[in-house]
Amino acid sequence: MQVYEAPLRDMKFVLHELHNDDGFGNLEALEEFTPDLVDAVLEEAAKVAQEVLLPLNRSGDIEGCTVENGGVRTPKGFKEAYDLFREGGWCALASDPEWGGQGLPEQVNKMTEEMICSANLSFSLYPGLTHGGTTAMEAYASDELKQAYLPKMVSGEWSGTMCLTEAHCGTDLGMLRTKAVPQDDGSYKLTGGKIFISAGEHDLTENIIHLVLARMPDAPAGVKGISLFLVPKYLPKDDGTPGEANGVSVAAIEHKMGLKASATCQLNFDDSVGWLVGKPNKGLEAMFKMMNTERVSVGIQGLGVGEAAYQSAVWYAKERVQGRSLSGVKNPDGPADPIIVHPDVRRMLMTMRAYNEGCRALSGWVSRALDAEKFSTDPEVKQRAEDFIALMTPVVKAVFTDLGFETANLGVQCYGGHGYIAESGVEQYVRDARIAMIYEGTNGIQALDLVGRKLPAHMGRYLRSFFHPVSQFIEANKEHETFGKMIEGLEKAFGALQLSTATIAEKGMKDPEEAAAAATEYTRLLGLVAMGYCFAKAALLAQAKLAEGSEETAFYKAKITTARFYFDRILPQATAAFLAIKSGKASMMELEADAF
Amino acid sequence: MQVYEAPLRDMKFVLHELHNDDGFGNLEALEEFTPDLVDAVLEEAAKVAQEVLLPLNRSGDIEGCTVENGGVRTPKGFKEAYDLFREGGWCALASDPEWGGQGLPEQVNKMTEEMICSANLSFSLYPGLTHGGTTAMEAYASDELKQAYLPKMVSGEWSGTMCLTEAHCGTDLGMLRTKAVPQDDGSYKLTGGKIFISAGEHDLTENIIHLVLARMPDAPAGVKGISLFLVPKYLPKDDGTPGEANGVSVAAIEHKMGLKASATCQLNFDDSVGWLVGKPNKGLEAMFKMMNTERVSVGIQGLGVGEAAYQSAVWYAKERVQGRSLSGVKNPDGPADPIIVHPDVRRMLMTMRAYNEGCRALSGWVSRALDAEKFSTDPEVKQRAEDFIALMTPVVKAVFTDLGFETANLGVQCYGGHGYIAESGVEQYVRDARIAMIYEGTNGIQALDLVGRKLPAHMGRYLRSFFHPVSQFIEANKEHETFGKMIEGLEKAFGALQLSTATIAEKGMKDPEEAAAAATEYTRLLGLVAMGYCFAKAALLAQAKLAEGSEETAFYKAKITTARFYFDRILPQATAAFLAIKSGKASMMELEADAF
Repeated sequence: MQVYEAPLRDMKFVLHELHNDDGFGNLEALEEFTPDLVDAVLEEAAKVAQEVLLPLNRSGDIEGCTVENGGVRTPKGFKEAYDLFREGGWCALASDPEWGGQGLPEQVNKMTEEMICSANLSFSLYPGLTHGGTTAMEAYASDELKQAYLPKMVSGEWSGTMCLTEAHCGTDLGMLRTKAVPQDDGSYKLTGGKIFISAGEHDLTENIIHLVLARMPDAPAGVKGISLFLVPKYLPKDDGTPGEANGVSVAAIEHKMGLKASATCQLNFDDSVGWLVGKPNKGLEAMFKMMNTERVSVGIQGLGVGEAAYQSAVWYAKERVQGRSLSGVKNPDGPADPIIVHPDVRRMLMTMRAYNEGCRALSGWVSRALDAEKFSTDPEVKQRAEDFIALMTPVVKAVFTDLGFETANLGVQCYGGHGYIAESGVEQYVRDARIAMIYEGTNGIQALDLVGRKLPAHMGRYLRSFFHPVSQFIEANKEHETFGKMIEGLEKAFGALQLSTATIAEKGMKDPEEAAAAATEYTRLLGLVAMGYCFAKAALLAQAKLAEGSEETAFYKAKITTARFYFDRILPQATAAFLAIKSGKASMMELEADAF
Repeated sequence: MQVYEAPLRDMKFVLHELHNDDGFGNLEALEEFTPDLVDAVLEEAAKVAQEVLLPLNRSGDIEGCTVENGGVRTPKGFKEAYDLFREGGWCALASDPEWGGQGLPEQVNKMTEEMICSANLSFSLYPGLTHGGTTAMEAYASDELKQAYLPKMVSGEWSGTMCLTEAHCGTDLGMLRTKAVPQDDGSYKLTGGKIFISAGEHDLTENIIHLVLARMPDAPAGVKGISLFLVPKYLPKDDGTPGEANGVSVAAIEHKMGLKASATCQLNFDDSVGWLVGKPNKGLEAMFKMMNTERVSVGIQGLGVGEAAYQSAVWYAKERVQGRSLSGVKNPDGPADPIIVHPDVRRMLMTMRAYNEGCRALSGWVSRALDAEKFSTDPEVKQRAEDFIALMTPVVKAVFTDLGFETANLGVQCYGGHGYIAESGVEQYVRDARIAMIYEGTNGIQALDLVGRKLPAHMGRYLRSFFHPVSQFIEANKEHETFGKMIEGLEKAFGALQLSTATIAEKGMKDPEEAAAAATEYTRLLGLVAMGYCFAKAALLAQAKLAEGSEETAFYKAKITTARFYFDRILPQATAAFLAIKSGKASMMELEADAF
């Protein structure tokens, strides 16, 4: 059964307690957003997720989207849910108040994103893509375009898309063929086909604003000849309301493994009127602006689905009775004990729990940097925040989505045979979570971004924004009375990460394939160390709270246990990653293509 | 695209070269089955898999099974394919000639099973379940039942099922409720509901023979009161042909994540006539006979799907052009290089390849033991074979299916966004492979079987059938000129396995939860070492063949590279497993159920 209650206590722990000393400034610095207000927002978001979006998750999966009369019909209830969502102001949560947004801190926004993704990943894409679009527009669009489009997009009245991929090119956008021909009035006419366009067409909003990568006639070949254009589905009339159709049509919607309530469209642009966003031939830069925003959000999708899978598995493990506990009967009045008593079921549940809490803690840290980047007035803090975001974006995207998928699979495994049956609702999490490892740049591409761009940038400066706090923490707590062994484990993994970094830098300088061959394992290693650091901090903090006499003993004790489990059972993966990195590229690359 | 060509060269390597010195006797010992004959069988099986079954894999997934007029309709083409399959003698390949089987060695049979699973996993279940049934009947049924049913089941004219699970009990069969009431004529009348019955109803055969676990009225509670019954769908007439219906009806077929062309049925038995198979209240013993046969086969399912996913990914990685090689343009005439040039794509392909070849090599070794158990005249060899099979059955089932699923997922990842689209055919492999980790005993149950039953049995004797050859091999090759480092890696992992075994034995004696908490990681560790041993042997053998001047340089060189990759990139997982095992149960078990 799809069971979900927003993990508010853990969210508040991450928001208000865990990262207060990270030097990115406190929520309080965002003046009006007091902890009480923030908590109230989270509680309201939880209601929307649980009461409006969750009930549509499985029905949406079953019904899917359909093409009807050239438009796309979303599943029953989605339109009503979207209207409620929009009217509640949830589309505009983190957007700039200048355009009607509520300007909430990213820390709060990302937590609500997690809830929405837990409740209904397919739904999350409709407002999610719009948010990516408005981010790019805020940074690059002309004032005229901003005025005409941003208020309606921010409010959610109109939605947005990102039209990058074509059938023959995804990762390698340099090959794209969509044409943009300049017109006398300063507009362009776009012609070409795009695929995999999330929310490319649907019945939730009265207009859809496409941000389209295309090539001008005289553009240089490759990635240096790509520009970004805004192309509305309907051209706004003088009064700003949608007017005539703009030659954008749906060729088909994709039949996907999951995410079925999200309309993934093949779009054709046929002399569609568009306007340049940003400078000519600098489309990739603007695209990366929205892409980077989206990448953190896609990481959160992994976490969101993972949390839902975890809660559904916990529910089942308490409900389903099968066999008896090895340590003596636990449910003497029943025919068997609930399966949560069995160590191997515990192993799965604790793994899921540790992944989720680890990802949430790290996401909270990254979100604080997102806020500091936006709002800090201290240039040094701002710079450090930017560095940290640049470093962590590929890690959050790749590691969270890998772990989210693993968690979804463990959820199915907890259900046994019943998990393989659609009615259980948990196999949907596997199918839905699978896409997050692929879109917005495959996880392999994230890893290459990390080792190829982020590590070497500014002589390794990005990495320092992460290495400094971790090494300081280890130094300060090495001899910790209770958690000394845990800190030792962190130190060892951190040492492996430092050594791996040096190895990659050294080998990669001579041979970039060496760096690329280590990329995926390095990304995982960095993620593991970052989550380990968060867990160690959390354990120390929880212990201090208990020592202070906090009444929330169950919460803080569970936090310590989960941290211990992470160090016992998850962090050892770091050793495997380190050994793999050390082995180099030889055996990976030496086979001739013909030998495969 | 679903691409598949049976990996005949590697199969022949495993069958004829790799394990000749394992002390289980050679294929030649099975007199008439000369290598030439065996190769001819494999080549014919490849044709059936590639030409008959593969073309129905995706269409079967799309169409699925449907309930019609109380029966189940299999997808278009399945009936014709089954008839061809049956007429070709493929149902009877490894069955006893006494009942019309061809008596082929299991070594050959398992290779053909792999091919069938690669081509069409759903199809494989129809003949597969029958084979499990006949195995149990050969061992436990009365002569009368054997005479009446085995010839038609062995030929495939009639198919079989295993009816164990009920809605409230799967793993814990002690709770089952289906009743069997004895009749005056020595038969029984069965009443109850069973779920998850593969091939429970379909239109491929004129009769279906159910082997049903049920409870007699006076049976003791729990697992000691379960008996096994044979219940035909149609009662045979005096002439042996199917007569009147026997009260077995399909309540529904399950909506599953995958495996859609396999009819997974909810069956109701309503005063259905059945006959006891084996002794009263000893049903579990007979059930385990078929279960164990099936468990190795389910492991092979994981390998089969993994191989298909690998080949489909290789095809795409050569076909799809995207980006340029980091070591210089490889495809100067095209707009980009094929993605197989990229290290991270290589990483995925090599991982898939190493998993498949590792599983195939280990499966070949286990199959030799299956033959030795059946055919050897040397009681010592026979005993060792039995021990080895008992030990390796849970490893093959759990590790192969875990890796098969991982491989299928890597296949999707190689395709990027296209892999998430149904038309690519590769997301089907993920959905199909997922079930193999669950059915015939979840992988967690396999792990408990390994540490709870197999390790302690006869004072650890089973384990010796594996530890002896591995330690001998390490001793003999420690100083190997070329592969010394590889053998050192094997020795280290083997040491971790030995230490883990001792830890589990020691801790588990005092606290069985300690053994259970280590079970899954221990199973993986044992599988990793076993595959490592096979790869090291393969590398040495390949080197010897090259030194002898073999003309198959591409094959043997690739084998060495793949072995190196396994030691570089896969075997390091052993360290992570070892550290997890060492950590014990504390953090896994200490959370109160309420705290989840």
